[in-house]
Amino acid sequence: MKKGRVTIPTDENFVEGTKKYVKEWGADAVRDCDGTELPKNVGELAEKVYKTYFIVRGDNDFAYESDAHMQNIAMISERATAFSETLEIDLLKSLFEEQIKVNLTDYKKYWQVFDRTTGRELSVDEWEYIGDNKVLVKKAEKMHEYTVNYFGYSLWDATQVYNYTCNGWTITKDRDYDPLYPDVLEHILENLDRWIEENPQVNVVRFTTFFYHFFILYHKGDQQKLFDWYNYAMTASPAMFEKFFAEYGYEIKLEDLVTEGYYGNHFILPNKAQLDYMDLVQRFVSKTMKKIIDKVHASGKEAMMFWGDNWMGAEPYGKYFSEMGLDAVVGSVSSGATLRAVSDIPNLKYTEVRMMPYFFPDSLWNEDAATESLLYNWTIERRAMLRKPVDRIGFGGYLKLADQLPKFCKSVGHICDEFRTIYDTVANKLPYCTLKVAVLSYWGKEKSWMTNMVMQDAPFDRTRPYLGFLESLAGLPVEIDFISFADAKAGRLQEFDVVINAGLEGTSFSGGECWKDGELLVAVREYIANGGGFIGIGEPSANLYGGRYFQLADALGVDKEMGYSVLFNKYNTQIHEHFITEDKDGEIDYADGTDHVYALDGAKVLDAKCKWGKTSMNNCHVKMAVNEYGKGRCFYLAGLQYNAVNTRILYRAMLWCAGKESLLRKAFSSNVHTECHYYPDSKRYALVNNTSEEQTTTFFDIQGKTTEYALRPNEIVWINE
Amino acid sequence: MKKGRVTIPTDENFVEGTKKYVKEWGADAVRDCDGTELPKNVGELAEKVYKTYFIVRGDNDFAYESDAHMQNIAMISERATAFSETLEIDLLKSLFEEQIKVNLTDYKKYWQVFDRTTGRELSVDEWEYIGDNKVLVKKAEKMHEYTVNYFGYSLWDATQVYNYTCNGWTITKDRDYDPLYPDVLEHILENLDRWIEENPQVNVVRFTTFFYHFFILYHKGDQQKLFDWYNYAMTASPAMFEKFFAEYGYEIKLEDLVTEGYYGNHFILPNKAQLDYMDLVQRFVSKTMKKIIDKVHASGKEAMMFWGDNWMGAEPYGKYFSEMGLDAVVGSVSSGATLRAVSDIPNLKYTEVRMMPYFFPDSLWNEDAATESLLYNWTIERRAMLRKPVDRIGFGGYLKLADQLPKFCKSVGHICDEFRTIYDTVANKLPYCTLKVAVLSYWGKEKSWMTNMVMQDAPFDRTRPYLGFLESLAGLPVEIDFISFADAKAGRLQEFDVVINAGLEGTSFSGGECWKDGELLVAVREYIANGGGFIGIGEPSANLYGGRYFQLADALGVDKEMGYSVLFNKYNTQIHEHFITEDKDGEIDYADGTDHVYALDGAKVLDAKCKWGKTSMNNCHVKMAVNEYGKGRCFYLAGLQYNAVNTRILYRAMLWCAGKESLLRKAFSSNVHTECHYYPDSKRYALVNNTSEEQTTTFFDIQGKTTEYALRPNEIVWINE
Repeated sequence: MKKGRVTIPTDENFVEGTKKYVKEWGADAVRDCDGTELPKNVGELAEKVYKTYFIVRGDNDFAYESDAHMQNIAMISERATAFSETLEIDLLKSLFEEQIKVNLTDYKKYWQVFDRTTGRELSVDEWEYIGDNKVLVKKAEKMHEYTVNYFGYSLWDATQVYNYTCNGWTITKDRDYDPLYPDVLEHILENLDRWIEENPQVNVVRFTTFFYHFFILYHKGDQQKLFDWYNYAMTASPAMFEKFFAEYGYEIKLEDLVTEGYYGNHFILPNKAQLDYMDLVQRFVSKTMKKIIDKVHASGKEAMMFWGDNWMGAEPYGKYFSEMGLDAVVGSVSSGATLRAVSDIPNLKYTEVRMMPYFFPDSLWNEDAATESLLYNWTIERRAMLRKPVDRIGFGGYLKLADQLPKFCKSVGHICDEFRTIYDTVANKLPYCTLKVAVLSYWGKEKSWMTNMVMQDAPFDRTRPYLGFLESLAGLPVEIDFISFADAKAGRLQEFDVVINAGLEGTSFSGGECWKDGELLVAVREYIANGGGFIGIGEPSANLYGGRYFQLADALGVDKEMGYSVLFNKYNTQIHEHFITEDKDGEIDYADGTDHVYALDGAKVLDAKCKWGKTSMNNCHVKMAVNEYGKGRCFYLAGLQYNAVNTRILYRAMLWCAGKESLLRKAFSSNVHTECHYYPDSKRYALVNNTSEEQTTTFFDIQGKTTEYALRPNEIVWINE
Repeated sequence: MKKGRVTIPTDENFVEGTKKYVKEWGADAVRDCDGTELPKNVGELAEKVYKTYFIVRGDNDFAYESDAHMQNIAMISERATAFSETLEIDLLKSLFEEQIKVNLTDYKKYWQVFDRTTGRELSVDEWEYIGDNKVLVKKAEKMHEYTVNYFGYSLWDATQVYNYTCNGWTITKDRDYDPLYPDVLEHILENLDRWIEENPQVNVVRFTTFFYHFFILYHKGDQQKLFDWYNYAMTASPAMFEKFFAEYGYEIKLEDLVTEGYYGNHFILPNKAQLDYMDLVQRFVSKTMKKIIDKVHASGKEAMMFWGDNWMGAEPYGKYFSEMGLDAVVGSVSSGATLRAVSDIPNLKYTEVRMMPYFFPDSLWNEDAATESLLYNWTIERRAMLRKPVDRIGFGGYLKLADQLPKFCKSVGHICDEFRTIYDTVANKLPYCTLKVAVLSYWGKEKSWMTNMVMQDAPFDRTRPYLGFLESLAGLPVEIDFISFADAKAGRLQEFDVVINAGLEGTSFSGGECWKDGELLVAVREYIANGGGFIGIGEPSANLYGGRYFQLADALGVDKEMGYSVLFNKYNTQIHEHFITEDKDGEIDYADGTDHVYALDGAKVLDAKCKWGKTSMNNCHVKMAVNEYGKGRCFYLAGLQYNAVNTRILYRAMLWCAGKESLLRKAFSSNVHTECHYYPDSKRYALVNNTSEEQTTTFFDIQGKTTEYALRPNEIVWINE
């Protein structure tokens, strides 16, 4: 039996059990977990010992010593309407007072009061802080809405708030401190020295994570006001603003980060100050972490980043990430796309993912359910592993709990083995790819596998139509890159067979006002006209201008009716048969994607939903269409839920757009519930059943030669060339 | 038996039949119809004789004499992409060549070529007309899109094109001439003189209509490219542009009318030139029609406008309409809203509507179906009649055909009688109204009962959510006015109990960029805060700015998630019981109105559709909500299909917004399928069954005293006070 590449939790009270599962699952690493302690002599249990390390959290004596250690948050008050000429704005309205304290440092310098009805910023003598967390607008314009931008001290670690308030903890509340202050950083480095000394058996320092938390605000302890996994609001402070001025020679304003209340989240196109700011934070995090990681390395240990909690400024696909010298990243994933987000990170010694479910009471309460959940997640993530595996997998929680569920434990063992088999065949070799595909957005590379996400792959009605294609891509036999509009203008489109633009109008992912840039339009049109493939999902290139909503309507062959051109009859509603839908096995789920799209002359509609109405031609919503443009081909899709039927549609659409339909039945499995991957270097095929039922399928080898197969539930059949 | 107020068609071949129905239906007027001739001695058949009169159509010898008589159209070519540096644009691409001929008059002066990718207008030396309906862009930027604005001669009457090409006619194609040319106008006046002399028995000259057709373009004879009942494109010509310059001292450009290809339709906010232009056309039409109508009056006849065909420039609610001195307007209607559009026209001697169905073979082919259609339309229009009746009703088509359907004819007689009874009780007296309600849009009064319409009340998916409330209003016991944003800023909101803003973002009906005007926002907020009622439907006050999509979100208590604030949790999803939904009898049909609306703190959700998702609180779409704001109240509705349940909801919502809930059960009928109208001057109530089934209901008199009633299908019970 194979061994290695697996991390499991251990506990000082479960040493013999740990040994059992190290053996049964072939684990080569053990780790601690919230609420457990590593056993003494833990080094004897496995080759590797991971231990969690908090840099800015859990050291409360020091944290509470002075407000000057504390982290801050870039804040904007709720909007307040002036019902009379004097208006008092409560800065903490709808906030949790245990999380935030108003920071009065130089407030006349940093704070901003805006009349949101006119967009005017008030001069500093038009408002005053009057105590009790309130700002007075001295002479408000009646019926105008006002807001205050301010700095809030971050009183309580954002992750702990929830755990704490929900579980009735009474220990000291963790307060994060800010390494931007030299004395804090010095303290951090001292702490680390001591810890290294105290933990000789630990090989891997598992950082959870670095300095600045992603953005969570609370209404109250058990109710989050907002949650944004990608937001820099909690990196900001007067000190960081001063650093900004020192480096760039101009002032950043709180408005650059709170952006009218949207908090500059990554759906919003950033302005220059916000971009410079993010660059600054990334450089600071990277440079400072390098000091910390250098110490780790000097002690002979490895440095691992847990991708979560305080990860802001440490963008795995960012410019400065590699400079900090990390050995590894471990991510918590629940899908193929989030797995690829980890496995594709460059310049690391290794990557790892923590598998679902955790060995926690709320997930292991029922053995069948836990086992099903385990297999379900594994099957989804396995698709992505088969394209680009992480180097290790791991489990978290209480091993003792899992030990009570023998069937579950057997499945864990099976997964560990299957993972190792996959890894041995796949790792560090490019699997056979039919196409090179790019996802085109404002952000490009930096948001690899993070496009249109708020809370990783958690679905919101506004983003759901744009998550599915990414999940489908994660396991398809194509090479994937993420490129920016700047890349497109610089001529990079030509590198790809197919380019995808997906998202809602106005967002950075679709592109918003970037599509007013003729240079970008020309670059994309030229790429297509010269034979490129283009796929638009939802509201691609949408930006109402010059008579079009989709700026690439001419190429896509569709536009969206926004209510300005209702007078035009839309005749092109007939559904065409097409290569893309040839083996469509069931209804396509568009994830409630875009409505009101109509086809222009020349486009071919592949699917449309036509509603009630005597003028029905004007009440059809095109869901899928193709169009030829110059030598190129385009495909439009209203949205996409991830599932087997949809994945096949997307794959066929990509092949068609690229003019490579003939590649379909090479290294291919006919049944949509199965997939085939081919590894030329290993001379093997993986024929995979993605369902928990038996499936029969026709396997096509790389020459197109067919063989029939029956696959057991979830089975991978390895076929030698 | 009562008599009068009814017009029926006659025919020289059906004189005895005409006499029979004059008697049976109590008709006092006869009219001709397409393809029939009035009998000799027609004056003996009825008190009034109407005869159709075309001012600019059907006089083809003169029309074909010279291009200089012809009408023009403001045109824009299809968009053309420059795949190379030279680009030829075919001006007539996708058009019907029998409808349009390119007008080369001073083309370098009038035509415009735009690069739609950059928005730049090309200078005149950058393009050339090269014959064969083609414009050459000399040095096009590759992959940019270009359009040409030009004048087209209108070769063929837009109404006739369809009839002609669909029915295989071979007569001369009607060509409309333009009264803007003095020799044409002179000819028109001579024709009229002669006609008056030749038609001594005619009392009423029924103009079909005046000069300029509403906008129809064809792809081919039997396929319309576009249809816009409200569009001025067919009023334009080089001569009208010269008149514009002469009057205003600045040049109007074709772009002011074709607006990027949207043809300045009334959903688009107009610019100054477009407004001036419409004013010019209206003044010209009114002034010229006055000359014509003066002749009609001098001959002792009446002048009636058929509201259709060539009605552009004769806006019944426009500033100059009354100046032409019309006696009557007859409209073709199919709903309560379109009926009110006719019956509310001020400054006329009388109004009339042509009832559906026409006595045409395609509508009278089956007696039961025809009778059902007759009663269905009557029942819908009757609601509006009971509020504000027209003065006359009429029928069109071939009486001989109707004569073959005795049951149908009996129903016509019943309707004529019921109409006269209604008229006697209702006309010229204000019925009891519980509220004063205003519909607020950019256009105000001028678009009374025409808001959000393209083809009168024909439903399009983009406008359907905004047609239903108007239809409901048409028959509710409220006084209705249509006001503009300028009226709102001038303080007119205070006249009303409830103000409604409805429509799609960016349109003139919702208001688009007008909502960036702080003065407007203050006016509306102040009105509400002081106790006013406000109802928003669909995307009220929508204009993404300053952190809000609905600029009145603070008052409405809802906003729409556009994808920029997905990070915020939306907790306010609990459905509340409320006065508005107290007797809700079935599901509300929101006509596929706005999705992605969420409730702000403090608002009360009355209905929401929550979709799939683990984070379901962020996937609820609020369909109906209320909010209190200052002393005022607001109601939000995603859209509204006209039906009985929805009408009751709207009525209750208006009462609640106005704080007049106590008026609900005064002059009221409990069953939503019935309605009650009260006429204080006549001291009568009408208790109406709006369905073709029996209904029982509790009738509340004006004091609130109740009586139970059973109503026969479609019955009106008249109750004396």
